[in-house]
Amino acid sequence: MPDVSVSSAPTVIASPETPTEAPPRAAQALAVKRVAIDTWKENVAYLHRDCAVYRAEGFQALSKVEVRANGRRILASVNVVDDASIVSCEELGLSEDAFAQLGLEDGHAATIQQAEPPASIAALHRKINGERLDREAFERIVADIAAHRYSKIELTAFVVACNRGELDREEVYFLTEAMVHAGRRLDWREPLVVDKHCIGGIPGNRTSMLVVPIVAAHGLLCPKTSSRAITSPAGTADTMEVLAEVALPFERLAEIVREHRGCLAWGGTAELSPADDVLISVERPLSLDSPGQMVASILSKKLAAGSTHLVLDIPIGPTAKVRSMPEAQRLRRLFEYVADRLRLSLEVVITDGRQPVGYGIGPVLEARDVMRVLENDPRAPNDLRQKALRLAGRLIECDPDVRGGDGFAIARDILDSGRALARMQAIIEAQGRKPFDPEHPPLGALQFEVRAAADGVVTGIDNLHIARIARLAGAPKVAGAGVDLAVKLGEPVRRGDLLYRVYAGYAADLAFARQAAERDGGYQIGSASAVPHVFVEF
Amino acid sequence: MPDVSVSSAPTVIASPETPTEAPPRAAQALAVKRVAIDTWKENVAYLHRDCAVYRAEGFQALSKVEVRANGRRILASVNVVDDASIVSCEELGLSEDAFAQLGLEDGHAATIQQAEPPASIAALHRKINGERLDREAFERIVADIAAHRYSKIELTAFVVACNRGELDREEVYFLTEAMVHAGRRLDWREPLVVDKHCIGGIPGNRTSMLVVPIVAAHGLLCPKTSSRAITSPAGTADTMEVLAEVALPFERLAEIVREHRGCLAWGGTAELSPADDVLISVERPLSLDSPGQMVASILSKKLAAGSTHLVLDIPIGPTAKVRSMPEAQRLRRLFEYVADRLRLSLEVVITDGRQPVGYGIGPVLEARDVMRVLENDPRAPNDLRQKALRLAGRLIECDPDVRGGDGFAIARDILDSGRALARMQAIIEAQGRKPFDPEHPPLGALQFEVRAAADGVVTGIDNLHIARIARLAGAPKVAGAGVDLAVKLGEPVRRGDLLYRVYAGYAADLAFARQAAERDGGYQIGSASAVPHVFVEF
Repeated sequence: MPDVSVSSAPTVIASPETPTEAPPRAAQALAVKRVAIDTWKENVAYLHRDCAVYRAEGFQALSKVEVRANGRRILASVNVVDDASIVSCEELGLSEDAFAQLGLEDGHAATIQQAEPPASIAALHRKINGERLDREAFERIVADIAAHRYSKIELTAFVVACNRGELDREEVYFLTEAMVHAGRRLDWREPLVVDKHCIGGIPGNRTSMLVVPIVAAHGLLCPKTSSRAITSPAGTADTMEVLAEVALPFERLAEIVREHRGCLAWGGTAELSPADDVLISVERPLSLDSPGQMVASILSKKLAAGSTHLVLDIPIGPTAKVRSMPEAQRLRRLFEYVADRLRLSLEVVITDGRQPVGYGIGPVLEARDVMRVLENDPRAPNDLRQKALRLAGRLIECDPDVRGGDGFAIARDILDSGRALARMQAIIEAQGRKPFDPEHPPLGALQFEVRAAADGVVTGIDNLHIARIARLAGAPKVAGAGVDLAVKLGEPVRRGDLLYRVYAGYAADLAFARQAAERDGGYQIGSASAVPHVFVEF
Repeated sequence: MPDVSVSSAPTVIASPETPTEAPPRAAQALAVKRVAIDTWKENVAYLHRDCAVYRAEGFQALSKVEVRANGRRILASVNVVDDASIVSCEELGLSEDAFAQLGLEDGHAATIQQAEPPASIAALHRKINGERLDREAFERIVADIAAHRYSKIELTAFVVACNRGELDREEVYFLTEAMVHAGRRLDWREPLVVDKHCIGGIPGNRTSMLVVPIVAAHGLLCPKTSSRAITSPAGTADTMEVLAEVALPFERLAEIVREHRGCLAWGGTAELSPADDVLISVERPLSLDSPGQMVASILSKKLAAGSTHLVLDIPIGPTAKVRSMPEAQRLRRLFEYVADRLRLSLEVVITDGRQPVGYGIGPVLEARDVMRVLENDPRAPNDLRQKALRLAGRLIECDPDVRGGDGFAIARDILDSGRALARMQAIIEAQGRKPFDPEHPPLGALQFEVRAAADGVVTGIDNLHIARIARLAGAPKVAGAGVDLAVKLGEPVRRGDLLYRVYAGYAADLAFARQAAERDGGYQIGSASAVPHVFVEF
């Protein structure tokens, strides 16, 4: 007899009753049916309560199941149906997205089985318990996330466990790298691929639509893809969409970039860092935006897009995402560390985030501001022009033939000479022009005005509240909705002077925006000495 | 001009276009329709994509909305429907549970609006960021959780943020107290209301069904409510249900308790600590069971049920929830601290959790074991009998008329004399007897056997794996399915001897259970010296 315990590899002896012909229950086929319900990023499988598979498998409502058909497999949560007109006992209903992912006709056979828990769940538990994870653990977790193998609950657990100081900087590097690996990575086959990015939070900050035509006109490759607004009144993709098509097949985008050295497109079609999109689906409702997650999200997208040089804009101000210089510096160092490990040339610029940039907030209003800057219109917002020139200047200095310090002047020449406008028109044409007259921008037909209640100087404009009013007014869904600022920080006003005008497309939207503006106008009026200072680079 | 900034309480001046008659969009009425889909604990509102409210409100799929009708309000997530036969543009579809919660007829008018985020979200964010919360913050969070105001994402964030050392013992007390306050609290109007509870994890551990009739026969009030199995092959409610009805209206339960001094019912009807049920819906899929959450969950249920004295069973063993004595002692001290603050008299007993208790695992098999103990049948499992007697003895010693140390003997007399069996029969009769013959328990018709692969002594039985095999065989859904152990720890076996028999009701279940048993039988056979020791109280 051995001295140590041994595992007893059991002899399993079938009793006579055992029906050995029993098919493994994994393989019962049903006919797929598209159920015309949009469940957003959650795949749902609808099974009739009396369906044999449902009964045999012991699925519960919300069980995670794997649906296989035609060589593809998707994961879904089960909803149990008691109405045969929605799905019958022989059918497997799939929500719209889930149905589309399988890419089948109605009636095609599919099998369904309990989904195995994702292989990386053990690593997730180590993170929940506060352990440091290694590169391999991040690779496995992120691969499972990108493949939609995590439930909302598991995603949230990962995001919360990685929040606040829980990731050291090397872990942020591992996470970023894993997020790049989890998707497609573009290779432009050029030594210099430039991009700019802002960490967000400042309404009206549409510098990309100026920087891209300027640096592309200089000759740098700048294949800019952007997101649509998620919590803001307009993203670059929403604003560009006022002027041109932005949802282009990737191959078309690549052609445009080769011809014009730049584009301004929506990034949703490129499958870059798909894990990021999944993580955002839980970070957003929780308003979680920890430094580690922000760095991994931004840098993974840029690396996947093939960027070699990035200028990153970190605005600071009392109502910006980053509110103090020490905080901005900590964030800068984390970005620099991770970019360095991943061999991305990164320049971080800390900018003035005390108020919105430009005048207009909302897609049409922002497109108007951008076009005025490109056209050297005297009504163009100077802060937007200056900021775009400085960012473009930094990127132009990535060009080895440009002397340090010359970038700004080169950018200004390109803008003032009309070459930036010409390049923008070429890009608009290539992407597919939409009718837009900057003299008569298609603004919402309904409006109200907000006026100063006292004499004084504008000492504060609340980025968050102005953005909220613009969203309530309908932006970005209603492109012509938004807020048009009449005065900016430090400017004098008298009681009754116009502060801003709000545009809406629908009466109900207007009423909601007005309620919010009545509760709090978002402006502070005081003495000139009360205007907050920020010490920023430009 | 004032010296400090003042908020500019703006004059909002309506432009002529402003339709002041615009109804606030909060109040658009739709006709409710029951959509026969069971979405489990998630309320879902189905809105047609072309529905005016959906378009006006700018809901997204998965937006959280508030539905009001008839003075009631519920929260739900939106699913967008593209098929008018499911819901039309004039209808508001509700999933089965959501419809039931509103308690209306089809076609009744209801309004829908964007739900305000729960008021306690700020406190949740403080916890996510690692702050200590005070009593009031826990009260607000738990009240919102109990009212189903938290999304799955927010619930998960709370649970993960409270995990692992993140709650100090006073916070666990605050959380427990808040969970008691969030639901109904029973008052039996007696000075001594006893209960027993086990932290779980040990298959076959059905001591409650012995302890209740023993202590009730002694005269103590023991209104035992239990849960059904969630991840185990049988809960006390599932096993009792083999013998009697367990889903009784609360008033009927109270009558039975008054007459027989005890009951063995399902706790789902009593609305005790409702926040606990909600939290479990995310803790369970994550397999999170941190000490703080375990203490708050168990003690809040017991306090809400009106218990004054509790004996708590903490089993330890290599495959139990608690695996070492220091861990068990830490957990004991946390239970004791919180019980003390809440004036619950608590006795913690640390027990042998190295293997399943009794022979049978699964509702019918466990009911058979319990009845054999009550009937003093020589085939009764002695470990189950001894453990139940000791736990009952501790509870009996809560009786001020019983001398310390006499409890065990009193319990044994009650059991041996048949008084425990008589009391059990009375409780079964009162709850509603079901036909059950312990000589011919209604076991699953299909079976297979697992036999020893070597000579030796049983040195290990894996609680987790045996439970998994029993569940795969169909327990607890198929009451007659499960595992019947033939040998226990320390017993000698020869190659080919029966280790256990598995029963199933369906061929597919049997095949799955067999696969698992072939991969790993769950038994270790080795030398007698390799049997692990535990140092437990009894």
